[in-house]
Amino acid sequence: MTYCVGMVLDRGLVFMSDTRTNAGLDNISTFRKMTIWEAPGERVITLLAAGNLATTQAVVSLLDERSKIREERSSTILAAPSLFQIVRTVAATLREVIGQQEEGGLRADSPFSATLLIGGQIAGSPPRLFMIYPEGNFIECGEDTPFFQTGETKYGRPILVRAYDRTMSFEEAMKLLLVSFDSTLKANLTVGPPFDFHFYEADSLRRGWHGRIAPDDPYFQAISKGWGDALKEALDSLPDYTYPG
Amino acid sequence: MTYCVGMVLDRGLVFMSDTRTNAGLDNISTFRKMTIWEAPGERVITLLAAGNLATTQAVVSLLDERSKIREERSSTILAAPSLFQIVRTVAATLREVIGQQEEGGLRADSPFSATLLIGGQIAGSPPRLFMIYPEGNFIECGEDTPFFQTGETKYGRPILVRAYDRTMSFEEAMKLLLVSFDSTLKANLTVGPPFDFHFYEADSLRRGWHGRIAPDDPYFQAISKGWGDALKEALDSLPDYTYPG
Repeated sequence: MTYCVGMVLDRGLVFMSDTRTNAGLDNISTFRKMTIWEAPGERVITLLAAGNLATTQAVVSLLDERSKIREERSSTILAAPSLFQIVRTVAATLREVIGQQEEGGLRADSPFSATLLIGGQIAGSPPRLFMIYPEGNFIECGEDTPFFQTGETKYGRPILVRAYDRTMSFEEAMKLLLVSFDSTLKANLTVGPPFDFHFYEADSLRRGWHGRIAPDDPYFQAISKGWGDALKEALDSLPDYTYPG
Repeated sequence: MTYCVGMVLDRGLVFMSDTRTNAGLDNISTFRKMTIWEAPGERVITLLAAGNLATTQAVVSLLDERSKIREERSSTILAAPSLFQIVRTVAATLREVIGQQEEGGLRADSPFSATLLIGGQIAGSPPRLFMIYPEGNFIECGEDTPFFQTGETKYGRPILVRAYDRTMSFEEAMKLLLVSFDSTLKANLTVGPPFDFHFYEADSLRRGWHGRIAPDDPYFQAISKGWGDALKEALDSLPDYTYPG
Protein backbone atom coordinates (compact mmCIF):
# COMPACT_ATOMS: atom_id res chain seq x y z
CA MET A 1 0.00 0.00 0.00
CA THR A 2 0.94 3.65 -0.18
CA TYR A 3 -0.40 7.02 0.83
CA CYS A 4 -0.04 10.04 -1.45
CA VAL A 5 -1.77 13.42 -1.32
CA GLY A 6 -1.78 16.29 -3.80
CA MET A 7 -3.54 19.56 -2.96
CA VAL A 8 -4.30 22.73 -4.89
CA LEU A 9 -3.88 25.87 -2.78
CA ASP A 10 -4.06 29.52 -3.75
CA ARG A 11 -0.40 29.67 -2.94
CA GLY A 12 0.53 26.73 -5.18
CA LEU A 13 0.61 22.94 -5.27
CA VAL A 14 1.46 20.69 -2.36
CA PHE A 15 2.57 17.05 -2.64
CA MET A 16 3.41 14.42 -0.06
CA SER A 17 4.06 10.69 -0.38
CA ASP A 18 5.12 7.93 1.96
CA THR A 19 8.00 5.61 1.03
CA ARG A 20 6.92 2.17 2.16
CA THR A 21 6.54 -0.62 -0.35
CA ASN A 22 5.68 -4.15 0.53
CA ALA A 23 5.44 -7.54 -1.09
CA GLY A 24 3.50 -9.26 1.62
CA LEU A 25 3.61 -8.08 5.21
CA ASP A 26 7.00 -9.67 5.84
CA ASN A 27 8.84 -7.98 3.00
CA ILE A 28 8.89 -4.21 3.27
CA SER A 29 11.24 -1.69 1.71
CA THR A 30 11.70 2.05 1.35
CA PHE A 31 11.33 3.57 -2.11
CA ARG A 32 10.83 7.09 -3.32
CA LYS A 33 7.38 7.51 -4.91
CA MET A 34 7.81 11.16 -5.88
CA THR A 35 9.47 12.34 -9.08
CA ILE A 36 10.02 16.01 -9.99
CA TRP A 37 10.82 17.24 -13.51
CA GLU A 38 11.95 20.80 -13.90
CA ALA A 39 12.86 23.21 -16.72
CA PRO A 40 13.59 26.29 -14.61
CA GLY A 41 11.55 29.31 -15.65
CA GLU A 42 9.43 27.22 -18.01
CA ARG A 43 7.83 24.22 -16.24
CA VAL A 44 7.77 22.09 -13.08
CA ILE A 45 5.98 18.73 -12.96
CA THR A 46 5.57 16.48 -9.91
CA LEU A 47 4.45 12.84 -10.11
CA LEU A 48 3.28 10.71 -7.15
CA ALA A 49 2.91 6.99 -7.78
CA ALA A 50 0.80 4.47 -5.86
CA GLY A 51 0.56 0.84 -6.85
CA ASN A 52 2.78 -1.88 -8.20
CA LEU A 53 6.37 -0.68 -7.83
CA ALA A 54 7.64 -2.40 -10.98
CA THR A 55 4.90 -0.69 -12.95
CA THR A 56 5.48 2.79 -11.54
CA GLN A 57 9.26 2.56 -11.87
CA ALA A 58 8.90 1.46 -15.48
CA VAL A 59 6.55 4.37 -16.20
CA VAL A 60 8.97 6.90 -14.73
CA SER A 61 11.95 5.37 -16.56
CA LEU A 62 10.11 5.41 -19.89
CA LEU A 63 9.06 9.03 -19.38
CA ASP A 64 12.63 9.94 -18.53
CA GLU A 65 14.17 8.10 -21.47
CA ARG A 66 11.72 9.47 -24.00
CA SER A 67 12.22 13.03 -22.87
CA LYS A 68 15.87 12.64 -23.89
CA ILE A 69 15.22 11.38 -27.42
CA ARG A 70 15.06 14.40 -29.70
CA GLU A 71 12.43 13.24 -32.20
CA GLU A 72 10.04 12.06 -29.51
CA ARG A 73 10.35 15.12 -27.37
CA SER A 74 7.35 17.05 -28.65
CA SER A 75 4.92 15.08 -26.50
CA THR A 76 7.16 14.46 -23.51
CA ILE A 77 7.13 15.83 -20.03
CA LEU A 78 9.80 18.41 -20.78
CA ALA A 79 8.44 19.51 -24.17
CA ALA A 80 4.67 19.07 -24.42
CA PRO A 81 2.91 22.44 -24.74
CA SER A 82 0.28 21.82 -22.04
CA LEU A 83 -0.13 19.88 -18.83
CA PHE A 84 -3.15 18.18 -20.35
CA GLN A 85 -0.96 16.72 -23.10
CA ILE A 86 1.61 15.62 -20.56
CA VAL A 87 -1.10 13.83 -18.59
CA ARG A 88 -2.28 12.09 -21.77
CA THR A 89 1.27 10.94 -22.44
CA VAL A 90 1.78 9.71 -18.88
CA ALA A 91 -1.58 7.92 -18.94
CA ALA A 92 -0.73 6.23 -22.25
CA THR A 93 2.64 5.17 -20.83
CA LEU A 94 0.94 3.73 -17.74
CA ARG A 95 -1.52 1.78 -19.89
CA GLU A 96 1.34 0.57 -22.09
CA VAL A 97 3.36 -0.74 -19.13
CA ILE A 98 0.40 -2.45 -17.46
CA GLY A 99 -0.63 -3.94 -20.79
CA GLN A 100 2.85 -5.30 -21.52
CA GLN A 101 3.09 -6.94 -18.12
CA GLU A 102 -0.34 -8.51 -18.35
CA GLU A 103 -0.05 -9.57 -21.99
CA GLY A 104 3.49 -10.81 -21.53
CA GLY A 105 2.03 -13.70 -19.60
CA LEU A 106 3.22 -12.43 -16.26
CA ARG A 107 1.01 -13.39 -13.35
CA ALA A 108 1.12 -12.11 -9.80
CA ASP A 109 -0.99 -12.21 -6.69
CA SER A 110 -1.20 -8.44 -6.72
CA PRO A 111 -2.31 -6.71 -9.89
CA PHE A 112 0.15 -4.73 -11.97
CA SER A 113 -1.95 -1.62 -11.70
CA ALA A 114 -1.02 1.81 -10.39
CA THR A 115 -2.67 5.15 -9.77
CA LEU A 116 -0.75 8.37 -10.38
CA LEU A 117 -1.12 11.93 -9.18
CA ILE A 118 0.50 14.48 -11.45
CA GLY A 119 0.53 18.21 -11.06
CA GLY A 120 2.54 21.23 -12.00
CA GLN A 121 2.68 24.35 -14.09
CA ILE A 122 3.85 25.33 -17.56
CA ALA A 123 4.64 28.98 -18.30
CA GLY A 124 1.51 30.79 -19.47
CA SER A 125 -0.96 28.43 -17.77
CA PRO A 126 -2.13 28.13 -14.18
CA PRO A 127 -1.03 25.24 -11.91
CA ARG A 128 -3.09 22.09 -12.42
CA LEU A 129 -3.44 18.73 -10.66
CA PHE A 130 -4.62 15.41 -12.17
CA MET A 131 -5.25 11.85 -11.03
CA ILE A 132 -4.59 9.05 -13.56
CA TYR A 133 -6.39 5.75 -13.08
CA PRO A 134 -4.88 2.35 -13.95
CA GLU A 135 -7.24 2.18 -16.94
CA GLY A 136 -5.44 5.20 -18.38
CA ASN A 137 -8.24 7.72 -18.01
CA PHE A 138 -7.86 10.68 -15.67
CA ILE A 139 -9.62 13.48 -13.81
CA GLU A 140 -8.57 16.98 -12.83
CA CYS A 141 -8.94 18.69 -9.46
CA GLY A 142 -11.70 21.28 -9.39
CA GLU A 143 -13.12 23.86 -7.04
CA ASP A 144 -15.33 21.28 -5.33
CA THR A 145 -12.67 18.59 -4.95
CA PRO A 146 -9.46 20.52 -4.43
CA PHE A 147 -7.24 17.60 -3.38
CA PHE A 148 -6.57 14.01 -4.42
CA GLN A 149 -5.48 11.04 -2.32
CA THR A 150 -4.26 7.66 -3.54
CA GLY A 151 -3.48 4.39 -1.79
CA GLU A 152 -4.75 4.01 1.77
CA THR A 153 -6.96 7.09 1.69
CA LYS A 154 -9.54 6.48 4.40
CA TYR A 155 -7.81 6.99 7.75
CA GLY A 156 -6.32 10.31 6.74
CA ARG A 157 -9.36 11.66 4.92
CA PRO A 158 -11.60 13.06 7.71
CA ILE A 159 -9.01 15.63 8.80
CA LEU A 160 -8.39 16.70 5.18
CA VAL A 161 -12.11 17.09 4.52
CA ARG A 162 -12.58 19.14 7.67
CA ALA A 163 -9.46 21.28 7.76
CA TYR A 164 -8.45 21.82 4.13
CA ASP A 165 -8.77 25.45 3.13
CA ARG A 166 -7.72 26.76 -0.25
CA THR A 167 -6.24 29.88 1.33
CA MET A 168 -4.05 28.01 3.81
CA SER A 169 -0.32 28.68 3.94
CA PHE A 170 2.38 26.11 3.14
CA GLU A 171 3.18 26.01 6.85
CA GLU A 172 -0.43 25.07 7.65
CA ALA A 173 -0.49 22.58 4.78
CA MET A 174 2.60 20.82 6.15
CA LYS A 175 0.95 20.54 9.55
CA LEU A 176 -2.30 19.22 8.04
CA LEU A 177 -0.53 16.68 5.86
CA LEU A 178 1.60 15.36 8.70
CA VAL A 179 -1.52 14.84 10.83
CA SER A 180 -3.22 13.04 7.95
CA PHE A 181 -0.16 10.86 7.32
CA ASP A 182 0.30 10.17 11.03
CA SER A 183 -3.31 8.98 11.37
CA THR A 184 -2.77 6.68 8.39
CA LEU A 185 0.48 5.11 9.48
CA LYS A 186 -0.87 4.54 12.97
CA ALA A 187 -3.57 2.33 11.41
CA ASN A 188 -1.99 0.69 8.35
CA LEU A 189 1.37 -1.09 8.52
CA THR A 190 1.87 -0.73 4.76
CA VAL A 191 2.16 3.06 4.98
CA GLY A 192 5.36 4.29 6.56
CA PRO A 193 7.85 7.12 6.91
CA PRO A 194 9.95 8.85 5.76
CA PHE A 195 7.64 11.15 3.82
CA ASP A 196 8.73 13.04 0.70
CA PHE A 197 7.23 16.47 0.12
CA HIS A 198 7.26 19.22 -2.48
CA PHE A 199 5.67 22.66 -2.06
CA TYR A 200 5.44 24.33 -5.44
CA GLU A 201 4.89 28.13 -5.38
CA ALA A 202 2.41 29.17 -8.05
CA ASP A 203 4.04 31.05 -10.96
CA SER A 204 7.55 30.46 -9.60
CA LEU A 205 8.22 27.93 -12.42
CA ARG A 206 10.99 26.37 -10.43
CA ARG A 207 11.18 23.52 -7.98
CA GLY A 208 9.91 24.65 -4.61
CA TRP A 209 10.72 23.61 -1.05
CA HIS A 210 11.14 19.86 -1.10
CA GLY A 211 12.68 17.26 1.10
CA ARG A 212 12.04 14.32 3.33
CA ILE A 213 10.47 14.05 6.78
CA ALA A 214 12.28 11.31 8.70
CA PRO A 215 10.51 9.27 11.38
CA ASP A 216 12.61 11.00 14.03
CA ASP A 217 12.12 14.50 12.57
CA PRO A 218 11.55 16.73 15.62
CA TYR A 219 8.64 18.58 14.02
CA PHE A 220 6.92 15.35 12.96
CA GLN A 221 7.45 13.96 16.46
CA ALA A 222 5.88 17.07 17.97
CA ILE A 223 2.86 16.79 15.66
CA SER A 224 2.44 13.07 16.23
CA LYS A 225 2.66 13.39 20.00
CA GLY A 226 0.68 16.59 20.24
CA TRP A 227 -2.20 15.49 18.03
CA GLY A 228 -3.61 13.00 20.54
CA ASP A 229 -3.87 15.68 23.22
CA ALA A 230 -5.16 18.25 20.73
CA LEU A 231 -7.90 15.85 19.62
CA LYS A 232 -8.93 15.18 23.21
CA GLU A 233 -9.13 18.92 23.85
CA ALA A 234 -11.18 19.31 20.67
CA LEU A 235 -13.60 16.68 21.95
CA ASP A 236 -13.74 18.39 25.33
CA SER A 237 -14.57 21.68 23.65
CA LEU A 238 -17.76 20.22 22.15
CA PRO A 239 -20.97 20.49 24.16
CA ASP A 240 -21.52 17.71 26.71
CA TYR A 241 -24.21 15.09 26.28
CA THR A 242 -26.81 15.04 29.02
CA TYR A 243 -27.00 11.44 30.15
CA PRO A 244 -30.34 10.74 31.73
CA GLY A 245 -29.27 7.61 33.63
CA MET B 1 -22.11 -1.28 4.37
CA THR B 2 -22.61 -0.58 8.03
CA TYR B 3 -20.77 0.96 10.94
CA CYS B 4 -20.98 -0.58 14.43
CA VAL B 5 -18.84 0.05 17.50
CA GLY B 6 -18.70 -1.75 20.84
CA MET B 7 -16.48 -0.44 23.65
CA VAL B 8 -15.50 -1.74 27.08
CA LEU B 9 -15.34 1.03 29.70
CA ASP B 10 -14.81 0.84 33.44
CA ARG B 11 -18.36 2.08 33.77
CA GLY B 12 -19.83 -0.60 31.52
CA LEU B 13 -20.36 -1.47 27.86
CA VAL B 14 -21.22 0.97 25.11
CA PHE B 15 -22.78 0.06 21.76
CA MET B 16 -23.71 2.10 18.70
CA SER B 17 -24.85 1.08 15.21
CA ASP B 18 -26.03 2.90 12.12
CA THR B 19 -29.24 1.84 10.37
CA ARG B 20 -28.49 2.08 6.67
CA THR B 21 -28.69 -1.00 4.49
CA ASN B 22 -28.18 -0.99 0.78
CA ALA B 23 -28.52 -3.31 -2.20
CA GLY B 24 -26.58 -1.25 -4.67
CA LEU B 25 -26.22 2.49 -4.30
CA ASP B 26 -29.70 3.16 -5.64
CA ASN B 27 -31.58 0.98 -3.18
CA ILE B 28 -31.12 2.05 0.42
CA SER B 29 -33.28 1.34 3.45
CA THR B 30 -33.30 1.83 7.20
CA PHE B 31 -33.07 -1.27 9.42
CA ARG B 32 -32.24 -1.76 13.06
CA LYS B 33 -28.93 -3.62 13.49
CA MET B 34 -28.98 -3.74 17.30
CA THR B 35 -30.77 -6.41 19.31
CA ILE B 36 -30.93 -6.45 23.12
CA TRP B 37 -31.90 -9.50 25.18
CA GLU B 38 -32.61 -9.02 28.86
CA ALA B 39 -33.48 -11.13 31.89
CA PRO B 40 -33.63 -8.34 34.48
CA GLY B 41 -31.35 -8.95 37.44
CA GLU B 42 -29.73 -11.92 35.72
CA ARG B 43 -28.33 -11.02 32.26
CA VAL B 44 -28.26 -8.42 29.50
CA ILE B 45 -26.90 -9.22 26.02
CA THR B 46 -26.48 -6.79 23.11
CA LEU B 47 -25.84 -7.87 19.52
CA LEU B 48 -24.67 -5.59 16.67
CA ALA B 49 -24.83 -7.03 13.16
CA ALA B 50 -22.88 -5.94 10.09
CA GLY B 51 -23.19 -7.68 6.76
CA ASN B 52 -25.85 -9.32 4.63
CA LEU B 53 -29.22 -8.28 6.09
CA ALA B 54 -30.98 -11.55 5.25
CA THR B 55 -28.22 -13.42 7.08
CA THR B 56 -28.23 -11.24 10.19
CA GLN B 57 -32.04 -11.18 10.43
CA ALA B 58 -32.14 -14.98 10.13
CA VAL B 59 -29.51 -15.33 12.87
CA VAL B 60 -31.46 -13.09 15.26
CA SER B 61 -34.75 -14.83 14.48
CA LEU B 62 -33.24 -18.29 15.06
CA LEU B 63 -31.70 -17.15 18.35
CA ASP B 64 -35.05 -15.72 19.40
CA GLU B 65 -37.08 -18.78 18.45
CA ARG B 66 -34.70 -21.23 20.07
CA SER B 67 -34.65 -19.33 23.33
CA LYS B 68 -38.41 -20.01 23.53
CA ILE B 69 -38.23 -23.78 23.04
CA ARG B 70 -37.90 -25.37 26.45
CA GLU B 71 -35.64 -28.35 25.64
CA GLU B 72 -33.21 -26.23 23.62
CA ARG B 73 -32.95 -23.47 26.16
CA SER B 74 -29.87 -24.66 28.03
CA SER B 75 -27.52 -23.25 25.39
CA THR B 76 -29.55 -20.22 24.35
CA ILE B 77 -29.00 -16.56 24.89
CA LEU B 78 -31.40 -16.44 27.84
CA ALA B 79 -30.23 -19.65 29.54
CA ALA B 80 -26.58 -20.41 28.77
CA PRO B 81 -24.47 -20.23 31.91
CA SER B 82 -21.70 -18.04 30.45
CA LEU B 83 -21.23 -15.39 27.82
CA PHE B 84 -18.58 -17.57 26.22
CA GLN B 85 -21.18 -20.30 25.63
CA ILE B 86 -23.63 -17.76 24.25
CA VAL B 87 -21.00 -16.54 21.80
CA ARG B 88 -20.33 -20.12 20.71
CA THR B 89 -24.04 -20.62 20.09
CA VAL B 90 -24.38 -17.36 18.16
CA ALA B 91 -21.29 -18.17 16.11
CA ALA B 92 -22.64 -21.63 15.29
CA THR B 93 -25.97 -20.11 14.28
CA LEU B 94 -24.20 -17.61 12.03
CA ARG B 95 -22.19 -20.38 10.36
CA GLU B 96 -25.36 -22.45 9.98
CA VAL B 97 -27.26 -19.62 8.25
CA ILE B 98 -24.40 -18.69 5.92
CA GLY B 99 -23.86 -22.37 5.11
CA GLN B 100 -27.53 -22.96 4.31
CA GLN B 101 -27.68 -20.00 1.98
CA GLU B 102 -24.50 -20.94 0.17
CA GLU B 103 -25.25 -24.67 -0.02
CA GLY B 104 -28.86 -24.08 -0.97
CA GLY B 105 -27.63 -23.00 -4.37
CA LEU B 106 -28.37 -19.33 -3.76
CA ARG B 107 -26.04 -16.95 -5.55
CA ALA B 108 -25.70 -13.24 -5.11
CA ASP B 109 -23.34 -10.47 -6.11
CA SER B 110 -22.62 -9.71 -2.47
CA PRO B 111 -21.59 -12.55 -0.17
CA PHE B 112 -23.95 -13.87 2.47
CA SER B 113 -21.46 -13.21 5.20
CA ALA B 114 -21.81 -11.12 8.33
CA THR B 115 -19.72 -9.99 11.27
CA LEU B 116 -21.27 -9.70 14.72
CA LEU B 117 -20.35 -7.81 17.87
CA ILE B 118 -21.86 -9.29 21.01
CA GLY B 119 -21.40 -8.10 24.55
CA GLY B 120 -23.10 -8.16 27.88
CA GLN B 121 -23.03 -9.50 31.38
CA ILE B 122 -24.38 -12.53 33.24
CA ALA B 123 -24.78 -12.40 37.03
CA GLY B 124 -21.57 -13.53 38.71
CA SER B 125 -19.28 -12.64 35.82
CA PRO B 126 -17.82 -9.34 34.57
CA PRO B 127 -19.06 -7.63 31.40
CA ARG B 128 -17.47 -9.05 28.24
CA LEU B 129 -17.38 -8.09 24.56
CA PHE B 130 -16.74 -10.38 21.56
CA MET B 131 -16.46 -10.10 17.79
CA ILE B 132 -17.69 -13.06 15.71
CA TYR B 133 -16.27 -13.51 12.21
CA PRO B 134 -18.27 -14.89 9.26
CA GLU B 135 -16.23 -18.09 9.52
CA GLY B 136 -17.77 -18.66 12.94
CA ASN B 137 -14.66 -18.08 15.03
CA PHE B 138 -14.45 -15.16 17.43
CA ILE B 139 -12.20 -12.96 19.55
CA GLU B 140 -12.71 -11.15 22.84
CA CYS B 141 -11.84 -7.56 23.71
CA GLY B 142 -8.80 -7.26 25.93
CA GLU B 143 -6.87 -4.61 27.78
CA ASP B 144 -4.86 -3.76 24.67
CA THR B 145 -7.78 -3.65 22.24
CA PRO B 146 -10.65 -2.35 24.31
CA PHE B 147 -13.10 -1.70 21.47
CA PHE B 148 -14.30 -3.37 18.29
CA GLN B 149 -15.57 -1.84 15.05
CA THR B 150 -17.28 -3.61 12.16
CA GLY B 151 -18.31 -2.51 8.67
CA GLU B 152 -16.78 0.73 7.37
CA THR B 153 -14.22 1.03 10.15
CA LYS B 154 -11.50 3.22 8.70
CA TYR B 155 -12.83 6.78 8.62
CA GLY B 156 -13.99 6.68 12.23
CA ARG B 157 -10.98 4.86 13.64
CA PRO B 158 -8.34 7.59 14.16
CA ILE B 159 -10.48 9.49 16.66
CA LEU B 160 -11.30 6.28 18.58
CA VAL B 161 -7.64 5.28 18.71
CA ARG B 162 -6.63 8.72 19.98
CA ALA B 163 -9.46 9.64 22.33
CA TYR B 164 -10.71 6.35 23.78
CA ASP B 165 -10.04 6.11 27.48
CA ARG B 166 -11.21 3.23 29.61
CA THR B 167 -12.15 5.59 32.44
CA MET B 168 -14.32 7.86 30.30
CA SER B 169 -17.91 8.57 31.28
CA PHE B 170 -20.96 7.54 29.24
CA GLU B 171 -21.45 11.23 28.37
CA GLU B 172 -17.92 11.38 26.94
CA ALA B 173 -18.42 8.06 25.16
CA MET B 174 -21.57 9.38 23.45
CA LYS B 175 -19.66 12.43 22.25
CA LEU B 176 -16.74 10.31 21.00
CA LEU B 177 -19.00 7.85 19.18
CA LEU B 178 -21.00 10.59 17.48
CA VAL B 179 -17.79 12.19 16.19
CA SER B 180 -16.59 8.80 14.91
CA PHE B 181 -19.94 8.09 13.24
CA ASP B 182 -20.15 11.59 11.78
CA SER B 183 -16.69 11.25 10.19
CA THR B 184 -17.78 7.94 8.68
CA LEU B 185 -21.09 9.04 7.23
CA LYS B 186 -19.48 12.17 5.75
CA ALA B 187 -17.24 9.86 3.69
CA ASN B 188 -19.28 6.72 2.94
CA LEU B 189 -22.81 6.91 1.52
CA THR B 190 -23.62 3.42 2.76
CA VAL B 191 -23.39 4.44 6.42
CA GLY B 192 -26.29 6.61 7.58
CA PRO B 193 -28.35 7.84 10.51
CA PRO B 194 -30.33 7.31 12.64
CA PHE B 195 -27.93 5.65 15.09
CA ASP B 196 -29.07 3.16 17.73
CA PHE B 197 -27.22 3.14 21.03
CA HIS B 198 -27.14 1.19 24.29
CA PHE B 199 -25.10 2.15 27.36
CA TYR B 200 -24.99 -0.81 29.75
CA GLU B 201 -23.97 0.02 33.32
CA ALA B 202 -21.61 -2.66 34.69
CA ASP B 203 -23.27 -4.88 37.32
CA SER B 204 -26.69 -3.31 36.81
CA LEU B 205 -27.90 -6.49 35.05
CA ARG B 206 -30.66 -4.57 33.37
CA ARG B 207 -30.98 -2.79 30.07
CA GLY B 208 -29.29 0.59 30.29
CA TRP B 209 -29.90 3.91 28.59
CA HIS B 210 -30.78 3.13 25.00
CA GLY B 211 -32.44 4.90 22.13
CA ARG B 212 -31.93 6.35 18.71
CA ILE B 213 -30.11 9.47 17.51
CA ALA B 214 -32.06 10.96 14.60
CA PRO B 215 -30.32 12.93 11.83
CA ASP B 216 -31.95 16.12 13.16
CA ASP B 217 -31.16 15.38 16.81
CA PRO B 218 -30.03 18.76 18.23
CA TYR B 219 -27.08 17.24 20.10
CA PHE B 220 -25.87 15.33 17.03
CA GLN B 221 -26.25 18.48 14.96
CA ALA B 222 -24.18 20.44 17.48
CA ILE B 223 -21.44 17.78 17.42
CA SER B 224 -21.43 17.50 13.63
CA LYS B 225 -21.26 21.26 13.11
CA GLY B 226 -18.88 21.91 15.99
CA TRP B 227 -16.37 19.20 15.12
CA GLY B 228 -15.03 20.95 12.01
CA ASP B 229 -14.20 24.08 13.98
CA ALA B 230 -12.86 22.06 16.90
CA LEU B 231 -10.54 20.16 14.55
CA LYS B 232 -9.26 23.37 13.01
CA GLU B 233 -8.56 24.75 16.47
CA ALA B 234 -6.79 21.51 17.36
CA LEU B 235 -4.58 21.90 14.30
CA ASP B 236 -3.93 25.53 15.19
CA SER B 237 -2.87 24.52 18.69
CA LEU B 238 -0.04 22.35 17.31
CA PRO B 239 3.36 23.96 16.82
CA ASP B 240 3.85 25.75 13.50
CA TYR B 241 6.16 24.46 10.83
CA THR B 242 9.01 26.76 9.91
CA TYR B 243 8.88 27.07 6.16
CA PRO B 244 12.26 28.08 4.85
CA GLY B 245 10.99 29.37 1.50
